Amino acid sequence: MKIGGTHYRTIWPRADETVDVIDQARLPHEFATAVLRSAEDCAEAIKKMIVRGAPLIGATAAYGVALAMRREPSGKALISALDMLRATRPTAVNLRWALKRMHDALHNRGHGERFAMAWREAAAICDEDVAVCRAIGAHGLKLLRAAAAKKNGAPLDILTHCNAGWLACVDWGTALAPIYMAHDEGIAVHVWVDETRPRNQGASLTAYELGAHGVPHTIIADNAGGHYMQAGRVDLCVVGTDRVTRNGDVANKIGTYLKALAAKDNGVPFYVALPSSTIDWTLASGVDIPIEERSADEVLKMTGRLPGGAIATVEIAAPGSPAANPGFDVTPARLVTGFVTERGVCVPSEEGLHSLFPQ
Amino acid sequence: MKIGGTHYRTIWPRADETVDVIDQARLPHEFATAVLRSAEDCAEAIKKMIVRGAPLIGATAAYGVALAMRREPSGKALISALDMLRATRPTAVNLRWALKRMHDALHNRGHGERFAMAWREAAAICDEDVAVCRAIGAHGLKLLRAAAAKKNGAPLDILTHCNAGWLACVDWGTALAPIYMAHDEGIAVHVWVDETRPRNQGASLTAYELGAHGVPHTIIADNAGGHYMQAGRVDLCVVGTDRVTRNGDVANKIGTYLKALAAKDNGVPFYVALPSSTIDWTLASGVDIPIEERSADEVLKMTGRLPGGAIATVEIAAPGSPAANPGFDVTPARLVTGFVTERGVCVPSEEGLHSLFPQ
Repeated sequence: MKIGGTHYRTIWPRADETVDVIDQARLPHEFATAVLRSAEDCAEAIKKMIVRGAPLIGATAAYGVALAMRREPSGKALISALDMLRATRPTAVNLRWALKRMHDALHNRGHGERFAMAWREAAAICDEDVAVCRAIGAHGLKLLRAAAAKKNGAPLDILTHCNAGWLACVDWGTALAPIYMAHDEGIAVHVWVDETRPRNQGASLTAYELGAHGVPHTIIADNAGGHYMQAGRVDLCVVGTDRVTRNGDVANKIGTYLKALAAKDNGVPFYVALPSSTIDWTLASGVDIPIEERSADEVLKMTGRLPGGAIATVEIAAPGSPAANPGFDVTPARLVTGFVTERGVCVPSEEGLHSLFPQ
Repeated sequence: MKIGGTHYRTIWPRADETVDVIDQARLPHEFATAVLRSAEDCAEAIKKMIVRGAPLIGATAAYGVALAMRREPSGKALISALDMLRATRPTAVNLRWALKRMHDALHNRGHGERFAMAWREAAAICDEDVAVCRAIGAHGLKLLRAAAAKKNGAPLDILTHCNAGWLACVDWGTALAPIYMAHDEGIAVHVWVDETRPRNQGASLTAYELGAHGVPHTIIADNAGGHYMQAGRVDLCVVGTDRVTRNGDVANKIGTYLKALAAKDNGVPFYVALPSSTIDWTLASGVDIPIEERSADEVLKMTGRLPGGAIATVEIAAPGSPAANPGFDVTPARLVTGFVTERGVCVPSEEGLHSLFPQ
């Protein structure tokens, strides 16, 4: 998608066989890119959330394996890079999926061809992510068209949580792809953007990318979405996910569960958009998903722009009070209206998933 | 309650017939008091949230009327002060209750006795608030004792939203009064403190006052409470309220509704603590409660301490993105386990309220 009129992906290979990414830890305060020169750089970028979003984490990890192979194409180096990258984030399953795919593509190859093979495979993962997101967008667009048809020209009010836009992927996004397509074809849409504490991916990334594309939106505190649903001011919700279990339970950014409860209580459709690489067929239900516990500092501190434009971090809470910071929660399948995937829309259940993705 | 070993109320009369309040807009970063010398000062303190919390707003407004009578004890000045103070915040009903009480006490009095009468009445409102909160605490304490008895000595995990502690009242608090009493009698309690965006009353005020009293607590993002309920780590919720309608619907800080939904979904008791002055017998249900729309800046900016200790406000969101900021939401009575009042605990319904407060 475009920033300041220039088309970007979130990650792209450089001519010198290193990798460029948009430095998302510095958004929305400044637009900058970061060069990743090694598997360690990639792991660090994932851990520090320079790159984030389940699909983009997978793509970055794939390039991490490729960069490891550039330095040392041995079997030992391959295993070591896979282990290091797998340990960066526990919840997103795309990470594991991308690493398994890199392993499968590389482990039987001769050392001489491993780097070239890995480089091509990482690029293929990125290109496929773009195609998959475009397909998710096209399927979701049909839902938005139908919902908009009931609004008599009034804007379709869509609530989203966290960032499942193109910044979370390689391009297009998952939850936001249908919104971009609806906006581009002239459907009036307005997005309620949950700020998504504690890391504020909504206020900083979703608002940023919607604004850059010209999509009308309003940032709200995470607390406000239920009130707007009660007031009839949300037509549907759409979010992304970091892992969907076989029964249709959905791990996503902390707080997603609360919005799904409010949607259910108010008869508001609640959709989850996902590439099939997010489905974890090995887990029976959401209670088995490991939930990442992140730093208390994310709750206790906040970064932003001082009046002069300089970036500063302030401590916002009572001095000495501790904080806890679970990164994700699990929304039970019973609260989800449908999954929007690259192969179409299905009900959130094992049968639903199998109807689109027979194993 | 105590700060640094000294007992404070949130508001108290000075010898020079002005009023001192704790400046809560500067907490938790610094402890300071502010002098209110006129009804205008009181209105400004309420609007700028130097004082906040439904009971304290009522007490401050009462002193505002008294200060107006000190300057000019005419009927016109009385009406004008009542109107100005009533317009400061639309949602809390204690404000209207306190102003009506001041009106009723003063309007038939001679000009010569109005100030002395008003000063005594404002002091009586404060003293009664303390007594009422102490009674709420005693009734809530029984609930906490019973819940703690099932924990085999493990800490009782209580979740609260916003600040309904002594800083929201004159002393003791509503939702936090039972917690202070339980802690003081040796029951092991631990409070999950919702940070309560956008004004962060949880992270800044609830954490501050619990910390000052030595009550174990953990600040969490508003998004996290549902996850902890799913994980069985919340034994009960207790919150305050700004207005309860005749049928038992509860207006409280934005986001309360989402926690009540999660409590219901997980079988966690959800209590609302309130003085009877918070009951609005004139409204049939919560849909009639006016919801205050506050400044977008509260969502887009955040104030805190820079590393050197200076206080700074930073812009945290994508530049140019708009925000909306409803201050309250309505939790339907069906999601509430019980009301904890100064006369005991009742079910959240018209019959329940009437059983304690026959009209």
